[in-house]
Amino acid sequence: MFTQTKVLTHQGALKMLGAAAKRAEAIGQPQCIVIVDARGQVAAELVMTGAKFLSRKSALAKALTASSIGARSDTIPEAVRPAIGAAAKGDVTGLPGGLPIIVDGVVLGGIGVGSGSGEQDVEVAEAALASIGAIG
Amino acid sequence: MFTQTKVLTHQGALKMLGAAAKRAEAIGQPQCIVIVDARGQVAAELVMTGAKFLSRKSALAKALTASSIGARSDTIPEAVRPAIGAAAKGDVTGLPGGLPIIVDGVVLGGIGVGSGSGEQDVEVAEAALASIGAIG
Amino acid sequence: MFTQTKVLTHQGALKMLGAAAKRAEAIGQPQCIVIVDARGQVAAELVMTGAKFLSRKSALAKALTASSIGARSDTIPEAVRPAIGAAAKGDVTGLPGGLPIIVDGVVLGGIGVGSGSGEQDVEVAEAALASIGAIG
Amino acid sequence: MFTQTKVLTHQGALKMLGAAAKRAEAIGQPQCIVIVDARGQVAAELVMTGAKFLSRKSALAKALTASSIGARSDTIPEAVRPAIGAAAKGDVTGLPGGLPIIVDGVVLGGIGVGSGSGEQDVEVAEAALASIGAIG
Repeated sequence: MFTQTKVLTHQGALKMLGAAAKRAEAIGQPQCIVIVDARGQVAAELVMTGAKFLSRKSALAKALTASSIGARSDTIPEAVRPAIGAAAKGDVTGLPGGLPIIVDGVVLGGIGVGSGSGEQDVEVAEAALASIGAIG
Repeated sequence: MFTQTKVLTHQGALKMLGAAAKRAEAIGQPQCIVIVDARGQVAAELVMTGAKFLSRKSALAKALTASSIGARSDTIPEAVRPAIGAAAKGDVTGLPGGLPIIVDGVVLGGIGVGSGSGEQDVEVAEAALASIGAIG
Repeated sequence: MFTQTKVLTHQGALKMLGAAAKRAEAIGQPQCIVIVDARGQVAAELVMTGAKFLSRKSALAKALTASSIGARSDTIPEAVRPAIGAAAKGDVTGLPGGLPIIVDGVVLGGIGVGSGSGEQDVEVAEAALASIGAIG
Repeated sequence: MFTQTKVLTHQGALKMLGAAAKRAEAIGQPQCIVIVDARGQVAAELVMTGAKFLSRKSALAKALTASSIGARSDTIPEAVRPAIGAAAKGDVTGLPGGLPIIVDGVVLGGIGVGSGSGEQDVEVAEAALASIGAIG
């Protein structure tokens, strides 16, 4: 009736925020960065100076999607995106920039980045993952 | 000015949850399972270990849709899905996995299953219906 | 940057629902029963035939409160209940019937029961905990 | 018809989160920390490992209150707390732990801390303010 699982600590989440911000500064694209745990609770968040404030919402959806499916948000098949997005009240998104936080094969949560191009969002998320030795 | 209707009991709902979980375990696909009554009230719910947590939302939409129309969610015509889905704030969905709970020709509610493929979702919902002698 | 934690499985949650319903039937008081995990995600839910349907909402708040504080919901001090309840948009409640799910000293989540008297709600929650060898 | 105002950057917000977490670790009380800007937009957030997850909600209310009134949340007079809290849908709170972020006499936003005692919440918020040379 019980099982064990690995959990991301706030030290890890804070390190991810710092690494994401650093990369976003380096590429000159302010970002909204949201980190959620494996059950969808927000663990950490940063809205960078100059970022689009509504991207906070899409970054959250990206993080939730990646954490829920254990894969990148843009792996949601194109054909079902509108239907699943609507049924999940916008929480499921196929937008790029949502990456799972995977360590030793375990999904610890998700990171969502938004405000830049899809490529920039992914680059910043990957920098955050690399800072804690996770893949996504 | 009054009428009678048949109602699903919580014993029935609990039996459905158990049967759904058993089938989901048998096919190796953890599921989110939501059962609503004929008025759209949630009767029972189970989020299986390893299921996608956001599928809880789409499973609810599937159950609501099936209960509301008295038919499977994927019978909503393709052409009207976006418009009806938006108008119903995402509660109406054409995704497969929403089945009405029909006994003696009466719609007692709906069951929605989500996290697997459409076929898996339907199979698990059908196993739940069979456990109480309902069709969907 | 990582830690380990124990998690309640859906088998455990389903067993709790069954034990809660059985006790509620035995005392003749239909109940709403909600089980959430340690991060506030709903794991399982049952609205018994004859239960007050709005108690589903208070049962959820009780479960969330107990899981969040790792203690019974009615341990929230009387003096701060209105203020904390309002600030948490109703999710924090001092109503009796919310018990943490504690196994080996680890809080695995919370169970909230509502529809009966405070004593009945607690009794049903305790029966659920006992069924999996948890304390609360 | 236009004016200028001083704004907290994300570097400042991130520094505040780090200082808050460090103090919270030092006193052994995990906290939820929320920083909002002078317009009520969330700038940064951290939910520490072991913090009460529902305190995220009250920490947000504390931060919003402090930013909105330009003073500590617990300066809201006792007598009007219930009425103002209700009218503001819980966003205005008199709970301690919400401090304005004031630099050169300008309110740049608010920080809300929750999960500990009122004294602990204030201590952690003050550590965050000190890290950027702000008062509150």
